[in-house]
Amino acid sequence: MDSWNEKCAIVGVFNSNRSAALCYYSLFAMQHRGQESSGISTSNGYDITTLKGEGLVTSVFKYGLEKLVGDASIGHNRYSTAGEDSKCDVQPIFARYSLGQIALAHNGNLVNAEEVRDRLISQGAIFQSHLDTENLIHLIAQSKATKLRDRIIESLSCIKGAYSFVFLSRGKLFAIRDPYGFRPLSLGEINNEDGSKAYIVASETCAFDLINARYIRDINPGEMLIFSHENGVCSYESIQVFKAEPKKCIFEFIYFARPDSFVFNKCVYEIRKNMGIELAKEYKIKADLVIPVPDSGVISAIGYSQESGIPFEFGIVRNHYIGRTFIEPTQSSRELKVRLKLNPIKELIKDKDIIVIDDSIVRGTTSKQIIRILRKAGAKKIHLIIASPQTISPCYYGVDTPDISHLISATKSIEEVRDFINADSLHFLSLDGLYRSIGDEAKDGEGYCKACFDKQYII
Amino acid sequence: MDSWNEKCAIVGVFNSNRSAALCYYSLFAMQHRGQESSGISTSNGYDITTLKGEGLVTSVFKYGLEKLVGDASIGHNRYSTAGEDSKCDVQPIFARYSLGQIALAHNGNLVNAEEVRDRLISQGAIFQSHLDTENLIHLIAQSKATKLRDRIIESLSCIKGAYSFVFLSRGKLFAIRDPYGFRPLSLGEINNEDGSKAYIVASETCAFDLINARYIRDINPGEMLIFSHENGVCSYESIQVFKAEPKKCIFEFIYFARPDSFVFNKCVYEIRKNMGIELAKEYKIKADLVIPVPDSGVISAIGYSQESGIPFEFGIVRNHYIGRTFIEPTQSSRELKVRLKLNPIKELIKDKDIIVIDDSIVRGTTSKQIIRILRKAGAKKIHLIIASPQTISPCYYGVDTPDISHLISATKSIEEVRDFINADSLHFLSLDGLYRSIGDEAKDGEGYCKACFDKQYII
Amino acid sequence: MDSWNEKCAIVGVFNSNRSAALCYYSLFAMQHRGQESSGISTSNGYDITTLKGEGLVTSVFKYGLEKLVGDASIGHNRYSTAGEDSKCDVQPIFARYSLGQIALAHNGNLVNAEEVRDRLISQGAIFQSHLDTENLIHLIAQSKATKLRDRIIESLSCIKGAYSFVFLSRGKLFAIRDPYGFRPLSLGEINNEDGSKAYIVASETCAFDLINARYIRDINPGEMLIFSHENGVCSYESIQVFKAEPKKCIFEFIYFARPDSFVFNKCVYEIRKNMGIELAKEYKIKADLVIPVPDSGVISAIGYSQESGIPFEFGIVRNHYIGRTFIEPTQSSRELKVRLKLNPIKELIKDKDIIVIDDSIVRGTTSKQIIRILRKAGAKKIHLIIASPQTISPCYYGVDTPDISHLISATKSIEEVRDFINADSLHFLSLDGLYRSIGDEAKDGEGYCKACFDKQYII
Amino acid sequence: MDSWNEKCAIVGVFNSNRSAALCYYSLFAMQHRGQESSGISTSNGYDITTLKGEGLVTSVFKYGLEKLVGDASIGHNRYSTAGEDSKCDVQPIFARYSLGQIALAHNGNLVNAEEVRDRLISQGAIFQSHLDTENLIHLIAQSKATKLRDRIIESLSCIKGAYSFVFLSRGKLFAIRDPYGFRPLSLGEINNEDGSKAYIVASETCAFDLINARYIRDINPGEMLIFSHENGVCSYESIQVFKAEPKKCIFEFIYFARPDSFVFNKCVYEIRKNMGIELAKEYKIKADLVIPVPDSGVISAIGYSQESGIPFEFGIVRNHYIGRTFIEPTQSSRELKVRLKLNPIKELIKDKDIIVIDDSIVRGTTSKQIIRILRKAGAKKIHLIIASPQTISPCYYGVDTPDISHLISATKSIEEVRDFINADSLHFLSLDGLYRSIGDEAKDGEGYCKACFDKQYII
Repeated sequence: MDSWNEKCAIVGVFNSNRSAALCYYSLFAMQHRGQESSGISTSNGYDITTLKGEGLVTSVFKYGLEKLVGDASIGHNRYSTAGEDSKCDVQPIFARYSLGQIALAHNGNLVNAEEVRDRLISQGAIFQSHLDTENLIHLIAQSKATKLRDRIIESLSCIKGAYSFVFLSRGKLFAIRDPYGFRPLSLGEINNEDGSKAYIVASETCAFDLINARYIRDINPGEMLIFSHENGVCSYESIQVFKAEPKKCIFEFIYFARPDSFVFNKCVYEIRKNMGIELAKEYKIKADLVIPVPDSGVISAIGYSQESGIPFEFGIVRNHYIGRTFIEPTQSSRELKVRLKLNPIKELIKDKDIIVIDDSIVRGTTSKQIIRILRKAGAKKIHLIIASPQTISPCYYGVDTPDISHLISATKSIEEVRDFINADSLHFLSLDGLYRSIGDEAKDGEGYCKACFDKQYII
Repeated sequence: MDSWNEKCAIVGVFNSNRSAALCYYSLFAMQHRGQESSGISTSNGYDITTLKGEGLVTSVFKYGLEKLVGDASIGHNRYSTAGEDSKCDVQPIFARYSLGQIALAHNGNLVNAEEVRDRLISQGAIFQSHLDTENLIHLIAQSKATKLRDRIIESLSCIKGAYSFVFLSRGKLFAIRDPYGFRPLSLGEINNEDGSKAYIVASETCAFDLINARYIRDINPGEMLIFSHENGVCSYESIQVFKAEPKKCIFEFIYFARPDSFVFNKCVYEIRKNMGIELAKEYKIKADLVIPVPDSGVISAIGYSQESGIPFEFGIVRNHYIGRTFIEPTQSSRELKVRLKLNPIKELIKDKDIIVIDDSIVRGTTSKQIIRILRKAGAKKIHLIIASPQTISPCYYGVDTPDISHLISATKSIEEVRDFINADSLHFLSLDGLYRSIGDEAKDGEGYCKACFDKQYII
Repeated sequence: MDSWNEKCAIVGVFNSNRSAALCYYSLFAMQHRGQESSGISTSNGYDITTLKGEGLVTSVFKYGLEKLVGDASIGHNRYSTAGEDSKCDVQPIFARYSLGQIALAHNGNLVNAEEVRDRLISQGAIFQSHLDTENLIHLIAQSKATKLRDRIIESLSCIKGAYSFVFLSRGKLFAIRDPYGFRPLSLGEINNEDGSKAYIVASETCAFDLINARYIRDINPGEMLIFSHENGVCSYESIQVFKAEPKKCIFEFIYFARPDSFVFNKCVYEIRKNMGIELAKEYKIKADLVIPVPDSGVISAIGYSQESGIPFEFGIVRNHYIGRTFIEPTQSSRELKVRLKLNPIKELIKDKDIIVIDDSIVRGTTSKQIIRILRKAGAKKIHLIIASPQTISPCYYGVDTPDISHLISATKSIEEVRDFINADSLHFLSLDGLYRSIGDEAKDGEGYCKACFDKQYII
Repeated sequence: MDSWNEKCAIVGVFNSNRSAALCYYSLFAMQHRGQESSGISTSNGYDITTLKGEGLVTSVFKYGLEKLVGDASIGHNRYSTAGEDSKCDVQPIFARYSLGQIALAHNGNLVNAEEVRDRLISQGAIFQSHLDTENLIHLIAQSKATKLRDRIIESLSCIKGAYSFVFLSRGKLFAIRDPYGFRPLSLGEINNEDGSKAYIVASETCAFDLINARYIRDINPGEMLIFSHENGVCSYESIQVFKAEPKKCIFEFIYFARPDSFVFNKCVYEIRKNMGIELAKEYKIKADLVIPVPDSGVISAIGYSQESGIPFEFGIVRNHYIGRTFIEPTQSSRELKVRLKLNPIKELIKDKDIIVIDDSIVRGTTSKQIIRILRKAGAKKIHLIIASPQTISPCYYGVDTPDISHLISATKSIEEVRDFINADSLHFLSLDGLYRSIGDEAKDGEGYCKACFDKQYII
């Protein structure tokens, strides 16, 4: 479909003899953050074992999960854009290096990856994958520091961009967020059966819920947590590696995160609902029904309905079965592809003025097809309301966005977009409305990256 | 999960050179009616070719769909209960017989299947599958009539039970519903590129929407449609084989059908919403929120909210990724299994009195876990409201229901069930409320089978 | 490759709690008699369970063999010609019928199969596969006799052709050869761990060797063995159903059987070696070396070398790795296909006059390529000697032979064939030489079917 | 089975638009040199594309071979010992480095791999696989030389051990043998359709035969060939990087190579036959038959028979179907495993004194089972004659040998071994006999590595 995509989910579990299974459940809960490949690395104190492959979590770990024995594990889900996919690009990446063994999983995107890679290559490094992540292992391996923590800190100072990392050595687990905190990473704890505690870090807290972990706090921007056993006791230490200059990805609230997650210590559901409420305040439209594009527009549509008093109806049904569908080569497929996923309730829509809520418009082609289908279903007037501002610029911080030339709002006015998608009216949430949805402290968008809306790139 | 399951979906397409592809899309749209196996048989006028296998539609037809060349096809999705699954039980069933070749797909359940089978066997027939459907092919093959239509009619008079059938011979396609019309079957038409018309019959009209077919009407209870080419023109003929005594499965409205389908010529979405409205009239409960169990309770919850004025919230999020999930053998898995699918929005639920809407209670175990999870999420009071009457008796007409001993409402009072699942209150839709939801003509439930609620079995 | 192929192997094991495993090993030993599909049916006394599928024995039974629990089993390997392959055509065939359950595996070919099938179909039977074997189950099912043995006997009297059958009912196992004994079937016994005896019947005795079974005797042409438990004791009974008129397939000695098997109570290796000896007596050729086409010509070449005194050399090496090999669409593939399998030892062959021994010539195309390759390798003179008479007519008794128009010897003289394949000389074993190779009692070929050489078809 | 195994086959093709297909056929011909995994890398001048995976050649390249477009390719077959197998260990290895892109395939074993790896690691390199080969890419990447050829030469001077390498850069192909020439590597040429020539290097010449390539010569020990296009003309240049001190692996003649290959410019078949002749001179034994253990003992047995006059018989038949066979957990499997592969011709062996010829004895367990089976088949006396000296020490140069404690001849006298395997007599070829078999210039074994027989390790 025609959407922006979060590139990855990461998870780390420390001090649990169920560490690999807990990573597995967490990756399953975060499947929406990467469906192309998945992997888990587990340390038993002596060796790190990795199981990874292409496909959904249930398929990658169909056989062999029982071989991942050890009390510390990290895991990764990956979204890959076409053409880049290769078996060697699946994470975690594992390497033997001067301090022993290391595995690494990365959510984000390094903006100076090519520059670092070129420098490393010119110094004699070899790269076997297309992953930014390989840079970091090289930097760590080439550091002269004697402790891994110092090597990591030293290496991080060479890279720029968006990253949340989990590192697994044979005895420790490290979790780090970049100084801007672009990508989320939360800390939780789990009661072990023997009374001790295990720790978990994960991109989204929906992973915590599934495994009965308690949310403790977010890892801070620029912070590194080091999990280790000291004198037989498991604990973690915090190092504020970089001064925090928060630029949290505001799009997590709009689309990426599951609504049942807490992201940046905020309830995603509430924010999405607030967006609908703000939209209803900004655009008072007369209509018979409020209808979400499922699943992305559902929560905002509830908010819009509650604020406006216009009834909420589940007017478009989504077919949740996934997998590459056969399309006859002779058929024009654009509408068919949308229909394979979405189908309107004609009886509801016929002869009605409807407000349709979606999260964002990327290329505009899907919105155009949805409106076409709704018109065929008999809608009289169709007002498309988008629960985010216009996306006018790509993301360089770990989100898979199309080239700017394919971002319809980058080159077209709202009126031109409306005309293209053939809506009766088209409205976007204002940036201020978005801030209000997030809450007081987000006034003026401080602390958030919103470069896709205003082109203010921090790096 | 803990639900009743429709056993099958069927589809037939006649007079389209895209007949197999149209069946494929239709089966994809009806994937919810059978995820165990799938198959399509296509006739090119001389021979019938079948492609079938175990798995989801996208996987069964991953390779080879292009070999199904011909302008008439039938297809089938199947839900199978454990233990019965065998490669030879996948439909359509194909056979060579005295009039040539025939393929057959069946949605339903024959109540006298064993009796007919025993009689056929005692007369020398052999059975290679566990399918009721095999009976019918034998009856047709043993008939002395010279025309297939007469053989089918003769054979149908020997069988009792719930059935919607599609038959494919080399030149014709037959679609039949039993005299009670237990299972749905609708007729639609499609414009071919050359201006001619193709016909489609399918269990649910959501299949029509996907392929741009127009709904014409339902096949009547006891009616047979015969699609053929006469003098180069494609047309269909109707024969009322049996007097119609409608006993349409009322559970299609409650759970089986997709909400965007028309079933028994009624909009499923509207009926489900009406159920919520009726529930709100029957049970006026003070609460902060109305929350559906997704996806089964969503539409009724919208109705309940609109009628009661209590805000609707999507308070439980569903993980739609399917596939057999690894469960550690050492963990008690019941709650985990529910958590793998459902997760509450704690921020919404905490300290709230909530009304939870679901479609039905079968064993009660899932409801118990959902309530447990909601309590952990901080709900103060939990009122479970079920958008159907108590299911007190199994179905013998094509629905996979557990043994009566596992139907919690068969042996326990509402109060006992409430106690078991640990809800603060528990309410079921009344039968009259259900009739009102369906509409005027359903007064007293006439025309519908509701044996699962009242044990009034017609056969 | 360009050869005649035996269509099947069958096996049955009775009174062993390892019955399915013993069938599995036996089918593995007889893999050369059918590589397309494989299956085993096992009875536990109450139910018959079948595991079957397409592929080699090791792949079909990779998972699930442990589910075949019971002390009686039958198994089947199948060779299928292109176009006929379908999942439903894999044996054993299983059916429920008036006496309970039956499974059936068949090696051979019924000459009146179509006639019987047409009659059965006209009487109302349905056929779900393309297998001759389905006929027999119908005949048994339609019989009025009260005992299975009588039904089998009655049914066999309706069919004509070549067959060795194993039948499995819930409590008994039946093994039958046709009155002519076209296809082999041997009886053996195995010591169980508890001191009791298990019985095995198999197409070739190489199966016995693998599982340490002792050869007892061949089932006679026209004989049926019935294995059962009487008063807790396992025994078998013999019924001479038809008068034996032996017409044993002489080609088993020439090509089909493994050389380590006893077939028709004769050692295949010895007969093949005798053929080489007879050839050396019939054709005294001056040459430097005797070279077999591996593996089919190896044993006869040893005999030829011993009798003639010309040294035997393994001058052509065979690549035993199988599997469909990628061939570039742009390359002429005939020579490549032969080269993928066979490669000469140039150093041996260069400037030598060589005698090449093969078992038979079918189309002639492979022989032509082999000679071409040998000439490229530097052979001076190439004398091709065939360890069988000219095959001038197809087989209708269970062997996959090409249409007569593709049998090069059917239409061409020896000199014309020699010219086509470009040999310096070409010789075939005489029919008398073949009889002498088999032994005294085969004088005049009595007791053997040799219709492929002399067109004397018995039925 | 119980044998020594060559670890790998390599191939490189330059200046053919069929380069990937020619590599594919070559790897198929050399399948015996590595059945665990396979891979091909192809350069189109701009980019190198790799297709590799676990399994046999036909399965790894079942899909996708057509994507390997380019006129230069290298390929690799791999034998891996248990426990080491990992998807990342499959060759060719590919890397981006300071001069662009490189792919590398390796046959052999570096004796200082760990030392080099440790040094590289201490200097900051990371290792993602268990392969020795990864060392070399690092050394090349870290070199300061500006030309790849100089980097390769510089890197080779750091490594010790047995190696034949093929390197593919975007524009060139390099083929190198170590100074001792442990592992074979031959050069051939192929006529392209346009009249130009393509070049091939491969471990064994059987690859040349399959694709109609002409053998030119062996790459010399210590020599590097560089294939390139200069002014549009394809040519190759030779650099004698190291002084040749030939220590060619003598075991290639005994077991590893296919008999139809030329290895070290000698015909393997002839040498193996000579071994049999030498054995017959060394051990004059009275017996009725000479029987090879197939396939390893066949050629030597022919030689023994010709020299001794004792008739050669193919007295043990081998089942060539491969794949992991199911073994019942309850059965003692050692004899069964041998029986699954080998079966004697009882009729030949019964009451005979037989000479059995095999290539070598490793653990002795297989020989013991073979003799056991032959005794059961009725052999009176069994003389086991081995066509090689006693293997008393492991190989460190690219051959998979068991730990010395499992080499039966390392700790037991010939008499003790004879007793263990229960032969009537046991004889090994003398080292001198082995030299004589190879030919005049091998007098005293000069130019050959025979450390497995005499512990004289060169490095």
